[in-house]
Amino acid sequence: MRVKDVKKVVLAYSGGLDTSVILKWLQTTYQCEVVTFTADLGQGEELGPARDKALLLGIKPENIFIDDLRETFVKDFVFPMFRANALYEGMYLLGTSIARPLIAQRQIEIAEMVGADAVAHGATGKGNDQVRFEIGYYALKPDVKVIAPWREWDLTSRTALIAFAEQHQIPIAKDKRGEAPFSVDANLLHSSSEGKILEEPWDAADEMVWQRTISPTDAPDKVTEITIEFEHGDAVGINGERLSPATLLTKLNALGKENGIGRLDLVENRFVGMKSRGCYETPGGTILYVAHRAMESITLDREACHLKDSLMPRYAEIIYNGFWFSPERRMLQALIDESQKSVTGTVRLKLYKGNTIVSGRKSPNSLYSMKHVTFEDDQGAYDQFDAQGFIKLNALRLRLGAMAGRKGGAL
Amino acid sequence: MRVKDVKKVVLAYSGGLDTSVILKWLQTTYQCEVVTFTADLGQGEELGPARDKALLLGIKPENIFIDDLRETFVKDFVFPMFRANALYEGMYLLGTSIARPLIAQRQIEIAEMVGADAVAHGATGKGNDQVRFEIGYYALKPDVKVIAPWREWDLTSRTALIAFAEQHQIPIAKDKRGEAPFSVDANLLHSSSEGKILEEPWDAADEMVWQRTISPTDAPDKVTEITIEFEHGDAVGINGERLSPATLLTKLNALGKENGIGRLDLVENRFVGMKSRGCYETPGGTILYVAHRAMESITLDREACHLKDSLMPRYAEIIYNGFWFSPERRMLQALIDESQKSVTGTVRLKLYKGNTIVSGRKSPNSLYSMKHVTFEDDQGAYDQFDAQGFIKLNALRLRLGAMAGRKGGAL
Amino acid sequence: MRVKDVKKVVLAYSGGLDTSVILKWLQTTYQCEVVTFTADLGQGEELGPARDKALLLGIKPENIFIDDLRETFVKDFVFPMFRANALYEGMYLLGTSIARPLIAQRQIEIAEMVGADAVAHGATGKGNDQVRFEIGYYALKPDVKVIAPWREWDLTSRTALIAFAEQHQIPIAKDKRGEAPFSVDANLLHSSSEGKILEEPWDAADEMVWQRTISPTDAPDKVTEITIEFEHGDAVGINGERLSPATLLTKLNALGKENGIGRLDLVENRFVGMKSRGCYETPGGTILYVAHRAMESITLDREACHLKDSLMPRYAEIIYNGFWFSPERRMLQALIDESQKSVTGTVRLKLYKGNTIVSGRKSPNSLYSMKHVTFEDDQGAYDQFDAQGFIKLNALRLRLGAMAGRKGGAL
Amino acid sequence: MRVKDVKKVVLAYSGGLDTSVILKWLQTTYQCEVVTFTADLGQGEELGPARDKALLLGIKPENIFIDDLRETFVKDFVFPMFRANALYEGMYLLGTSIARPLIAQRQIEIAEMVGADAVAHGATGKGNDQVRFEIGYYALKPDVKVIAPWREWDLTSRTALIAFAEQHQIPIAKDKRGEAPFSVDANLLHSSSEGKILEEPWDAADEMVWQRTISPTDAPDKVTEITIEFEHGDAVGINGERLSPATLLTKLNALGKENGIGRLDLVENRFVGMKSRGCYETPGGTILYVAHRAMESITLDREACHLKDSLMPRYAEIIYNGFWFSPERRMLQALIDESQKSVTGTVRLKLYKGNTIVSGRKSPNSLYSMKHVTFEDDQGAYDQFDAQGFIKLNALRLRLGAMAGRKGGAL
Repeated sequence: MRVKDVKKVVLAYSGGLDTSVILKWLQTTYQCEVVTFTADLGQGEELGPARDKALLLGIKPENIFIDDLRETFVKDFVFPMFRANALYEGMYLLGTSIARPLIAQRQIEIAEMVGADAVAHGATGKGNDQVRFEIGYYALKPDVKVIAPWREWDLTSRTALIAFAEQHQIPIAKDKRGEAPFSVDANLLHSSSEGKILEEPWDAADEMVWQRTISPTDAPDKVTEITIEFEHGDAVGINGERLSPATLLTKLNALGKENGIGRLDLVENRFVGMKSRGCYETPGGTILYVAHRAMESITLDREACHLKDSLMPRYAEIIYNGFWFSPERRMLQALIDESQKSVTGTVRLKLYKGNTIVSGRKSPNSLYSMKHVTFEDDQGAYDQFDAQGFIKLNALRLRLGAMAGRKGGAL
Repeated sequence: MRVKDVKKVVLAYSGGLDTSVILKWLQTTYQCEVVTFTADLGQGEELGPARDKALLLGIKPENIFIDDLRETFVKDFVFPMFRANALYEGMYLLGTSIARPLIAQRQIEIAEMVGADAVAHGATGKGNDQVRFEIGYYALKPDVKVIAPWREWDLTSRTALIAFAEQHQIPIAKDKRGEAPFSVDANLLHSSSEGKILEEPWDAADEMVWQRTISPTDAPDKVTEITIEFEHGDAVGINGERLSPATLLTKLNALGKENGIGRLDLVENRFVGMKSRGCYETPGGTILYVAHRAMESITLDREACHLKDSLMPRYAEIIYNGFWFSPERRMLQALIDESQKSVTGTVRLKLYKGNTIVSGRKSPNSLYSMKHVTFEDDQGAYDQFDAQGFIKLNALRLRLGAMAGRKGGAL
Repeated sequence: MRVKDVKKVVLAYSGGLDTSVILKWLQTTYQCEVVTFTADLGQGEELGPARDKALLLGIKPENIFIDDLRETFVKDFVFPMFRANALYEGMYLLGTSIARPLIAQRQIEIAEMVGADAVAHGATGKGNDQVRFEIGYYALKPDVKVIAPWREWDLTSRTALIAFAEQHQIPIAKDKRGEAPFSVDANLLHSSSEGKILEEPWDAADEMVWQRTISPTDAPDKVTEITIEFEHGDAVGINGERLSPATLLTKLNALGKENGIGRLDLVENRFVGMKSRGCYETPGGTILYVAHRAMESITLDREACHLKDSLMPRYAEIIYNGFWFSPERRMLQALIDESQKSVTGTVRLKLYKGNTIVSGRKSPNSLYSMKHVTFEDDQGAYDQFDAQGFIKLNALRLRLGAMAGRKGGAL
Repeated sequence: MRVKDVKKVVLAYSGGLDTSVILKWLQTTYQCEVVTFTADLGQGEELGPARDKALLLGIKPENIFIDDLRETFVKDFVFPMFRANALYEGMYLLGTSIARPLIAQRQIEIAEMVGADAVAHGATGKGNDQVRFEIGYYALKPDVKVIAPWREWDLTSRTALIAFAEQHQIPIAKDKRGEAPFSVDANLLHSSSEGKILEEPWDAADEMVWQRTISPTDAPDKVTEITIEFEHGDAVGINGERLSPATLLTKLNALGKENGIGRLDLVENRFVGMKSRGCYETPGGTILYVAHRAMESITLDREACHLKDSLMPRYAEIIYNGFWFSPERRMLQALIDESQKSVTGTVRLKLYKGNTIVSGRKSPNSLYSMKHVTFEDDQGAYDQFDAQGFIKLNALRLRLGAMAGRKGGAL
């Protein structure tokens, strides 16, 4: 079911071979005007070449959009998500998932600006990213036409793709002629690798897969101690120095990288129904996750903490599945943000060969009461007799059950 | 509200100074017969001295019960809990919490056997353990009388305690005269330290606090690779060698210890309403947790996994709060156990200086399908066109919302 | 994407005009052998004519399957679901949803028996039923070919359908020539009406829509009192008479019908992404729902009840969406069934003009304790002093919060 | 553990015999100044006599506080709760629970105003209300001293209470000398009856128990049709007439009462651990609940609705247990309120002999799309082919499971 009568399409364009082929393919297949959008989300690539290449491929200068979205990415997407301590399937910090809605959002903004009726992306038909992009598109512009070349074209082999590129004078870097041994996605939060040599889940990942971190075994044999400062649930500084969101995450990435922190080799469940194996590197995010939990540990009420924890898997699943722009994510975000008002203070960490170790936490809003918890005399702050009534009424239903023959909580 | 007319009491007796004082105090206060129960849960202490000391304090031989519960502990308590990947407040593997119900259960069994009408324990009035013991007692024997000396007596200072001991000829080891710098609880799953020098959450824990693990910085600078074999969700072997539950956990503890694995410095929320700081060591349990998640990653259906994950915080809270013997824990256990039928296979891990790194997983029941996930030609296993319909119907409600003016999932 | 090379297809065949047209269309389109499967799920129609019509349309006698599945339906599908008190979106008793997996299951059994490679159903492309059928098919026979004529053919108008029928000598009942004013689905649990004259949600449903119940206004102006007996969560008798599952539900349906009980006019959210309006009649099911809750109210532990309640929406959604045959439904069922062991006893109800009123409940397993709850002297069963400690420790975290400046549970 | 050194206490004072005895008992027991607080929450009693009686019992005029809190009650407590469709244990509209935090709040405000160090209430030691009052007190004023006479004094029989009243010249209404056959609590939302003649859950409630509604059997044999208008989740008018919150609820109560709507005979689980039986009347609230759900049915996104539904049991439990002033209630409220932005429009209802029947709903924000749902030709709004891909990818994990030998969603 291809869309029809496309007039102008905004393409998420990296400047690489694949999206350059897509660019040409869109022109030739749909006979439509192509607008390119290239974003810097901290993937670590120059954007200049993308502009040059777009020009070379015949895109009009006014149809080339290049944006540095790093601060927006961290401030409005990464940080809100980290307030939730989001982990998909108990492990994954959602580094790829969280970048997609921002790209979709900006693509639609550009489409509205330039009067485009369609958008296109370079995600494959088996992955989650197509879902994340397209859910975003539809939620923001319900009448948009969506083109997903990888689901539509017949360039299904590397050979066919290269042939198409040659036929259309698309420059091909030497190292792009062959097949990459695995596929990579990267942004300021993380880098992911999957496919090809990583497909067998029993085989250990080759060291060359890891690009953002050095191995714990290669990391320096000394402890690096840092502090992270938080305000209302967001990190605002490192070692007492106040930093913008993207600057802060960049610095944490450097710290994580050199200490071998943030690697994850995972088999996960995709929204489209299959399992896949990914190797993720989230150096700064891993440190941030540990620090944020520690910050909450002294500033968050128990039930607030437990309520958040009980909803976290659902929140993570929503983001993983691509529903950032949805009522349910917004509702959960309202709940989470409400909880972060007093999550302010400082956490001290030791970074060492893959480990992120909490060694201290303090806050002007601390709920930790030395007076109550102390093994020393608490001067009446806590009446131990209260515990008896507390226990007895908590046990009452179980006692009534046991008296009725249901011992040990039997049903 | 002290209980009255106690005839015979079963005391959870460690053989240490505190429970020896309790023993004497029970005799003098309640004028009742005292039965001692000492369990080996892998805390790493000899049980012989406990028997000698009980005899010395006048307990009749037939009133001294000493049990090796290590296999029961791991098989019927630790393993069922690990099937759930239980973490309290995102971090804590519940090492203390899970031991209490077994002690309570055995204490009540002995009480029934010897015709005792009361039970007593040595937990303080500020902690969680009193709740865990007593909820267990009441659930198993609803008419039992419960004595919690620390909530009742006036031996509230170390001096008073020592004086009472001396007055009653209770032997006092030299190093027990002074105050311990922190309080310790241990069993085969973990060791916890808290109180005194650990009370200030900004102060880093002193190295002497850690007793079950060497520091990551002191661990050998080489990777130890192991495999763990699972059947139906439980670990059954290491490196291909089949082991009993307690033997297996003992071996994992040794592996974890020497590789600096399993330390946790945490501020947590107690059921009795205050925050407390604990330093936990769960060397084998930490390895087991990571391995079990990896085993599930290829054998568990996505929604089964997500359902488990969404209920895990509640399950962990139930155990933390002391409700092991409750209908709600049994119901959740039924759900969890149902999920583990095919969680069988092998996980390969690298242990290195505090890190537990998954490097492979395989299973006869694997749901991971190379044919579907491959970047290579899948020969029709997966039709990429299906993704379009999948996305469009998943997006339909958001499109309808956007058409009604609620763009981007607005409410 | 039509399936190809179909050899033999099992069609869910009602004997009505639409599925007769499908039957013929399958023969002509796929040139394949057609096997018909007609089930009695209590929809209230004779099955004899279905056989005659199938024969008339050229189906070989050995390819005609007619089964009375009423007892299986109630025992293995309706009752397990009612143990959960399942309501979709707070209101809907899932009468259509719960019948689909049984039809799918039997269709696949027949396919395996006769060596068919395909199955077909008569559900439309906009509804939930196509999902429920097909999810069931795929879960039970992953390589099955699925044919959904309403999504495939071009008989999209009534005129075209009638023309096709005439062309192929399919008998057309007089009242089937025109368009029905709404569409109906029925089984022993319920009857649903939707579409056409019901599409405008502001318009009240016409009285002719309701077919299984008389109007509350027309019901007799006198109270009918009944008792329902339960064992382990399932109804087993009415007024002391033991009845088989289907007989019992049939009798409850009669009682509900004549007392105007069980009508629901609802706008609901379909799994395929749109809202729809349905008029449902579940006379017996409504009575059963109220009675089951009342039975649980005295036999179920509080936390068991709350845990069930918290999972009910998820369970109902799973069934509504068509995932009866799924790991997550099985896991939740294990939890629910575990809870029902003691849900045994008797509930007394008053039925009156649309109302189902609980007037008494009793059980040999009752957890209701007169001794504890009484306003009279309870002779020490409950110590009111315990409440003080209970409250104080429950309030402790809030007091600590308020002392830290967060009054009234502020964050 | 009685509190000590009370200087001034604010008593929640109804003017009835019991709280008058408490008033005197506080004076004599604590030798402290007593401040009375009497609130009109719509319980249906004159407040003038309470003032007279307080004066008679020696309370200084400046220590007598009488407030009409009806509008606050409905606007800030009842309406926020109804946004959540809160039902405790699937049935109970929380009429008593929701009034307690407001009383506690106002009592503490007065305590702060008059410089009182203590508060007192007349709730018994077995019920939930003591918890609700005291949790509120502590959360709002953590250092407050709480006096709960029913847990403390020895006036445990009616005879003793009357004797104390006579001894202290407290006037006793004739009908208060004997024991009431059951206990009543009432406010604008509901009336509850429990205890004494209601204690046996098998016995039907006597008709005299019901005070706020006529019996369905006595209600007029004609349908009353009304509309309710909503804005952002709150009811704002009836039959097109805009009404203040309390006026609106008062009018709904009258409509419910005369049509026999809102009775509930329930066995519920108390927070203090026992089951109790209550007879509740919530005439207006029952109508409001049904209408609000219907309003949401066309204005709320599916996942927003399901998320709310999945959290509702927890929200209801929080309120039932007395934690209105808690972080967790505030967080959930933020989520719920976020969802209500577009819940605006009109619902039409038929009231008839106990039934509240939805007969229409409309909204300027409706998400119901005739174009998509129609059985008629939808002119391309919905592509039925999309359903195939939707189903196939939703089924993929189950197919993979079945291929691995786990047919039918087996684990």
